[in-house]
Amino acid sequence: MTQPRPHVVIIGGGFGGLEAAKSLAKAPVDITLIDKTNHHLFQPLLYQVATAGLAAPAIAAPTRSLFRHQANLTTLLAEVVDINPQDKKVHLSDGTALVFDHLIVAAGATHSYFGHDEWSAFAPGLKTLEDAFEIRRKVLFAFESAEKEPDPEKRQNWLTLCVIGAGPTGVEMAGAFAEIARQTLVGEFRRINPHDARILLIEGGPRVLQAMPETLSQKALQQLQKLGVEVRLNAIVTGIDATGLQVRGPAPAGVVGTVDYRIASQCVVWAAGVAASGLGRVLAQHTGCQTDRAGRVVVNADLTLPGYAHVSVIGDLAAAMSHRPGKPPAPVPGVSPGAKQMGRWAARNILHRIAGEPTQAFRYADYGNLATIGHNSAVVDLSTPFGPLRFSGRWAWWFWLLAHIYFLIGFRNRLVVLMDWGSAYLSFSRNARVVAGTLDKPVTHVGES
Amino acid sequence: MTQPRPHVVIIGGGFGGLEAAKSLAKAPVDITLIDKTNHHLFQPLLYQVATAGLAAPAIAAPTRSLFRHQANLTTLLAEVVDINPQDKKVHLSDGTALVFDHLIVAAGATHSYFGHDEWSAFAPGLKTLEDAFEIRRKVLFAFESAEKEPDPEKRQNWLTLCVIGAGPTGVEMAGAFAEIARQTLVGEFRRINPHDARILLIEGGPRVLQAMPETLSQKALQQLQKLGVEVRLNAIVTGIDATGLQVRGPAPAGVVGTVDYRIASQCVVWAAGVAASGLGRVLAQHTGCQTDRAGRVVVNADLTLPGYAHVSVIGDLAAAMSHRPGKPPAPVPGVSPGAKQMGRWAARNILHRIAGEPTQAFRYADYGNLATIGHNSAVVDLSTPFGPLRFSGRWAWWFWLLAHIYFLIGFRNRLVVLMDWGSAYLSFSRNARVVAGTLDKPVTHVGES
Repeated sequence: MTQPRPHVVIIGGGFGGLEAAKSLAKAPVDITLIDKTNHHLFQPLLYQVATAGLAAPAIAAPTRSLFRHQANLTTLLAEVVDINPQDKKVHLSDGTALVFDHLIVAAGATHSYFGHDEWSAFAPGLKTLEDAFEIRRKVLFAFESAEKEPDPEKRQNWLTLCVIGAGPTGVEMAGAFAEIARQTLVGEFRRINPHDARILLIEGGPRVLQAMPETLSQKALQQLQKLGVEVRLNAIVTGIDATGLQVRGPAPAGVVGTVDYRIASQCVVWAAGVAASGLGRVLAQHTGCQTDRAGRVVVNADLTLPGYAHVSVIGDLAAAMSHRPGKPPAPVPGVSPGAKQMGRWAARNILHRIAGEPTQAFRYADYGNLATIGHNSAVVDLSTPFGPLRFSGRWAWWFWLLAHIYFLIGFRNRLVVLMDWGSAYLSFSRNARVVAGTLDKPVTHVGES
Repeated sequence: MTQPRPHVVIIGGGFGGLEAAKSLAKAPVDITLIDKTNHHLFQPLLYQVATAGLAAPAIAAPTRSLFRHQANLTTLLAEVVDINPQDKKVHLSDGTALVFDHLIVAAGATHSYFGHDEWSAFAPGLKTLEDAFEIRRKVLFAFESAEKEPDPEKRQNWLTLCVIGAGPTGVEMAGAFAEIARQTLVGEFRRINPHDARILLIEGGPRVLQAMPETLSQKALQQLQKLGVEVRLNAIVTGIDATGLQVRGPAPAGVVGTVDYRIASQCVVWAAGVAASGLGRVLAQHTGCQTDRAGRVVVNADLTLPGYAHVSVIGDLAAAMSHRPGKPPAPVPGVSPGAKQMGRWAARNILHRIAGEPTQAFRYADYGNLATIGHNSAVVDLSTPFGPLRFSGRWAWWFWLLAHIYFLIGFRNRLVVLMDWGSAYLSFSRNARVVAGTLDKPVTHVGES
């Protein structure tokens, strides 16, 4: 009689969960990979779907299809509502439960409105394909509504596009909005001039791309301004409603201090806050584990849940530290290479445990950081053995493009993305300017994208 | 002082409206093209979006962008709620109105449940991108739900896919469903075998593709059966609910007469009935014009509304006749070449009227008819000067493919479609198997697909 093989359950088919699953392809374990959606999403390009540059299938691959040839893995389209580390059980929303021997929780993050969830109705964030379609709809229909609006003031409110938060996603979206207004739509309207659109990027901190070195933040700011984006730094959003937002920020030149003012806008997008998946709170309730301010689970050096060696937490849900020999522990940044590396590491530690070997403390390999602003415009900060390599502008953009296409999952998608960008690069057109549903009636039941 | 140019309003950006607008590009008129959505849809390939073969942007182009260079045309994203031919006014849902000198109503058709609108909740039809996403979701999630279902009977209900109506759309969808089950999904599930899926095509009439000659209907039937589709002819659907459908049809072999029976199915798609846009009824209320059983407006020989020479009705909304010299008038079939030709004809007649010339009776040029069933499988019925040319199978499929790609609007889309099909042809994969939203919670506000 053969011993049943250990059952590894992985929650989440993002970068972390996917890498963990792939790392266990040859291991003597049975894996169940659970995801709420039917696809793995290449998050770094999601803003392109939101800004009508790419179709959804170009950046999303069916999870089930990715693991077609991995015989030890079962994909399950399901939502996890509870995790009981003591009983080793994962409970699904349909009332069923799975029993695991090892668990990897890679449920990721969602957007946070800093306690103002009522803002979400007016300022969608960008985490899922649904979010991307909603933003695409909002931006494209803002121009359509402006075209129909006879009142000049109301028309300008439609043409005022606000992005809140100047991290990588906010910078990318503001840059793309500027390109839509200044290039893509030129000549297509008869009553408005899309050029009249104002794109505002509102950031609470003192600079854009705060994870980048200050010189590159400065470069990014210049590139944004060159595209026509108005960047407001040290500006705190204190309210958002159906007709605009309330901001507290530096007074105009010549006036000392801080002022409160209103920006009238019918198109606001949220790129400011990130909160860990609610499963972090669930784990804390069951085990008393610590979570940080963003709701991330504070994990052991080997990425396991304190007191529960058979449960690992990785990716955006984990407040993890990198333990490089001879260096003080450093927090792992919330980027896709971090999630992927944690996925591989957690998988390896499970194999160590099965083999009765000690697990190892996570070491994050930092290859650098990059962000794009628009056509021919990006900033790159690479970590090399010879020290940092920093550049911006056209070369940085090509580097960003090739890196992203290289990492896109699935040969066909890379080709489609390359083609779409090839044509967009030459023509400034955007090939996915398609909105399902009408102006009056948003879609209520939908399957894509 | 210059005389104001005549204002031509076109309602609908489908094949008919688009052709009418393009035909007036050089004419001394001002055109307003009104559509509910922001895109022109290449309807003949919509079933490919529904069956996850193509992404939405591959078959949809922003209407505004198509007319970027036509300076005499304004695109308006708006819904028409009333047409007053006497006042020459078109009323929009936002309360505003447009005054026209000439009007072309090309509002198309929607699906008809023959008085059973309550069926629409269980059996979506296929007319818009939203419909396509809903069907994609239904079909892909049926397999996902089957994978999770422990009860064998319930599992088989998820794996029973029903298509109602064996016109071109029904045949295409049934064929595509069979390919998804027998080819695309093979090897991706661990608990179910997608091969166990039953695909039923239920047709009230005595044969599939009734617009085709009988020999080709027979060929299509054979090709469907070869793909594993169970075709039920002379079978009338008498009820649809959340768990299946009620059918009245021929008794099984050996038994004489008709029986009532139930098919348990969690995935039903409607391809049976077509009804003209509600604007047909609006016109009838205002003018007392005749409409036929499908709600189409009975038009004059020159496609104008009886008694209103400045209003033309074309495409799927028109019950129009073709007037070939020396032949009796013949009804124009509800196909895209019909709509396109009517669009050009109505535009030309408007120019005749402006020039004070008599308008001309519509003549439909019938080039034939074609339908696809699946990979390498189609039927073609061409009208040539030497008589009909009919063929089926592999050659017909290639002919169908090239014809559709040729007519797809926009160079880039053709290339993307070709590429997607190239890879699908070689691998049997489907590249758009992406569903936004989760199993439990369908999307509520969405901008694409």
